[in-house]
Amino acid sequence: MSFQLLHVDGGARRGRLVTPHGTVETPTFMPVGTQATVKTMLMRDVESTGAQVVLGNTYHLMLRPGADRVAAFGGLHRFMNWPHTILTDSGGFQVMSLSALRKIDADGVTFKSHVDGSMHRLTPESAVDIQLKLGADIQMQLDECVRLPADAEAIARSVTISLDWGARARRTFLEAGTGRLQFGIVQGGTDPSERARSAEGLVAIGFDGYAIGGLAVGEPQADMFATIDVTEPSLPATSARYLMGVGTPGDLIGAVARGIDMFDCVMPTREGRHGMAYTSEGKINLKNARFATDDTPLDPAIDCHASREYSRGYLHHLVKVGEPLAATLISWHNIAYYQRLMADLRDAIAAGRFAEERARLAAIWGGGEDT
Amino acid sequence: MSFQLLHVDGGARRGRLVTPHGTVETPTFMPVGTQATVKTMLMRDVESTGAQVVLGNTYHLMLRPGADRVAAFGGLHRFMNWPHTILTDSGGFQVMSLSALRKIDADGVTFKSHVDGSMHRLTPESAVDIQLKLGADIQMQLDECVRLPADAEAIARSVTISLDWGARARRTFLEAGTGRLQFGIVQGGTDPSERARSAEGLVAIGFDGYAIGGLAVGEPQADMFATIDVTEPSLPATSARYLMGVGTPGDLIGAVARGIDMFDCVMPTREGRHGMAYTSEGKINLKNARFATDDTPLDPAIDCHASREYSRGYLHHLVKVGEPLAATLISWHNIAYYQRLMADLRDAIAAGRFAEERARLAAIWGGGEDT
Ligand SMILES: [Zn+2]
Ligand SMILES: [Zn+2]
Repeated sequence: MSFQLLHVDGGARRGRLVTPHGTVETPTFMPVGTQATVKTMLMRDVESTGAQVVLGNTYHLMLRPGADRVAAFGGLHRFMNWPHTILTDSGGFQVMSLSALRKIDADGVTFKSHVDGSMHRLTPESAVDIQLKLGADIQMQLDECVRLPADAEAIARSVTISLDWGARARRTFLEAGTGRLQFGIVQGGTDPSERARSAEGLVAIGFDGYAIGGLAVGEPQADMFATIDVTEPSLPATSARYLMGVGTPGDLIGAVARGIDMFDCVMPTREGRHGMAYTSEGKINLKNARFATDDTPLDPAIDCHASREYSRGYLHHLVKVGEPLAATLISWHNIAYYQRLMADLRDAIAAGRFAEERARLAAIWGGGEDT
Repeated sequence: MSFQLLHVDGGARRGRLVTPHGTVETPTFMPVGTQATVKTMLMRDVESTGAQVVLGNTYHLMLRPGADRVAAFGGLHRFMNWPHTILTDSGGFQVMSLSALRKIDADGVTFKSHVDGSMHRLTPESAVDIQLKLGADIQMQLDECVRLPADAEAIARSVTISLDWGARARRTFLEAGTGRLQFGIVQGGTDPSERARSAEGLVAIGFDGYAIGGLAVGEPQADMFATIDVTEPSLPATSARYLMGVGTPGDLIGAVARGIDMFDCVMPTREGRHGMAYTSEGKINLKNARFATDDTPLDPAIDCHASREYSRGYLHHLVKVGEPLAATLISWHNIAYYQRLMADLRDAIAAGRFAEERARLAAIWGGGEDT
C-alpha cells in the first residue's frame, strides 16, 4: 500500500504516503504551482519550508506550455525544478470555473481556452493521459463538480457521471501501469446520501486515495465540516483522504480533526501577494500603518528566511511601494506557516495530544467545534 | 587611502576600494536597489552573483519610507538585509527626471514628490545628512545635471553650481567625521574645457572618489567615450572613478579601457523583467518562439541558480504566461552575467592581457574601439 496509517487520535490521523518522488508525511499541505511555478517563489525556497508535495493545474498546463511540451522537457518535475512529489488535478474544476464556453456530455467536456479561444476536449481517458505526460506522482480522475446551491437532480447527475468517469479513468490509468497513484473524487454536494453513494461507488472501483471535491466553493465552514462528517464513514481507513482546494488555517484544523490527510490551497500565496500574512498570532495586513515602525520579525515562531532576515517595517515598506519582493517574502512566510501548522498537528496526533493542540490553534483560527 | 590601484594595463585599472562594510574589487558593477530592494530579488541571491556593492536611490528613499525611518531601523544595510557596501546617489538626478515640478536656486532645489505631491527641499547639506541617515558607505554630492543637448551657458552654469555645492557638501560631510566615503561629480556636458574645469575644481576640494555625471542620458556611445577621454586626465590616478548610470556591456568594456573603476545601471534588472537576457553569446529575448523547445541552460558559462537549475524553455514559458518568477530568474542571471564580465576584465588587467580580453568581449558587445 502506498499509504500507511501510523497513528489515530480521536478522528485525526497521522499517516505517510509513499510516491515515486518521495515520502509525504500526513496530514500535509500542498502549495499550489498552477503554471509550473509556485507564484513568485523559487522551488528551493518552497522546499525550505518543509513542503513535500506541490500541486500542478492540468487545465493551465495543457494550454500552456502543453502536456507534450512538458513531457519533452522530461516531465513537470524537471521542467519546474521540483524533485519531490507532484499532484495534478484533472483540469475539470478549472474548465468549469475559467472557460467561458464549455459543453459537458456523457463522454467528456469540450471547452474554449480562456487564453486564446482555441477549442479543447477533455475526457476521463485524455485527462489520465495528460497527467501521465506531465509526470504527476498523484493524479486525479476527471469529475463533474456542480456549483452550489444545486438542485437534487443536478447533484445526483454529477455523482453518476463522476462515478462513470472514475471507472473509465481508473481503467485507463491501470492499463498504463505506471506505479504512480490515482485518486477518485467524491461528489454529492451537501446531500449526505449522494456523498455516501459517490464514496461507496469510488471505493468499489478502488483508487489509491480519495478526494472530497465540490467544497471550498463559498459554502459556510459548518457545511463543509458536515459534508466531511457524512462522507468519511464511507472511505477506507487505509487510504489517504484529500480535501480539495481547502483552505484557511481553521478549515485545516477542523478537517484534520475529521480525518483528512491532504490539503491544497492558493490562499497562502494569493494572500501573500496582497500583503496578508498568516502568523502564530493570527492574520495580519502588512499594509496597515501600525507596521511602518515595527522592527520585529514577521513571526518569531517561524524559522523562515522572510521572518528571520527582515522586519515587519521593511515588509510594510515593500508592500506600500509595490515592490514585487513583498509578494515573494510574504508568500514564503505564509507557506512556512502552513507547513508549521501541519507539522504541529502531526506531532500532536503522534503524541496523543491532538485535542489540546487543536484547542490551542483553534483559539487563533477557529476550527475547534465538533458538529 | 580607501582606494588602492593594484595594476594598470593600458588605460584600464585594477583596483580595490575599502569601505566600512567591505572591500570592493574594481572595476566593479553595482546592481541598483532603488527602493531598498534590487527588484524581484533576495539580497542573498544578489550576493551569490559576486556583487560587492549595491546602489540606493536617495530620492526614492527620502520619500518612502523616509531617511529618519531608515535610520530608526538601523540604516539601509540592516533595513534591506545587505551587509556589504552601499553607495547612495544624492537624489539630484531623480529630482530632475521624476519630479513634475522643481525649482533650482543657488542654495538647493525645491521639488514636488511624484508619489503624493508633497513639497520637499534638497540642499548640498541636507543631501549629505540624508545619506548619513541612510548609512551609505559611499555617498554622492548633490549636483546639477543638465539635459543634453544644452547650450554653453547652461553647461557652464551647472558646472559652477555643482562645484559650489560640492564644496559645501564636502565641508558638511567632513564635519560629520564618519569614516565613510564621499564622491564628487564631474559635470560639463560634452564640452572638454568645462569637463576639465569641473574635474579640477573637485580635485581641489578633495573627495574620496570622483564620478562622471551627466552621461547615459541618451547620447551616442562615442560621445560618452570621448567625454571620459577628456575628463580622465584631470582626475588623480589614486582615486576611484565612477561612471554613473552606465550601461550596456559594450559601454562597460569601453569605459574600463578608459580607466573607469565603478558602474551602476538598472539595465540587467529592467531588461530581466522584460524577458531579455545577457549571455556569453549576446543578448537574447526569451519571449522568442525559438526558445519554446530549448532544453539548454540560459548560459552554460555562468554559474548562477537561474542558469543551472532551469532551461531556456522553462524561462520562455514563464515569460509567455506572465509569471513573476521570470523576472526574478532573468534578473538574477543578468546580474550574474554583469559580475562575470567585470571579473573577467579584472583578471585580464591583473594578468596584463586586457587588450585580448577586451577584443574577445567587444566582438560580442562592442566597446572595442579607441577614439
Ligand atoms: Zn516566516
Ligand atoms: Zn545565469
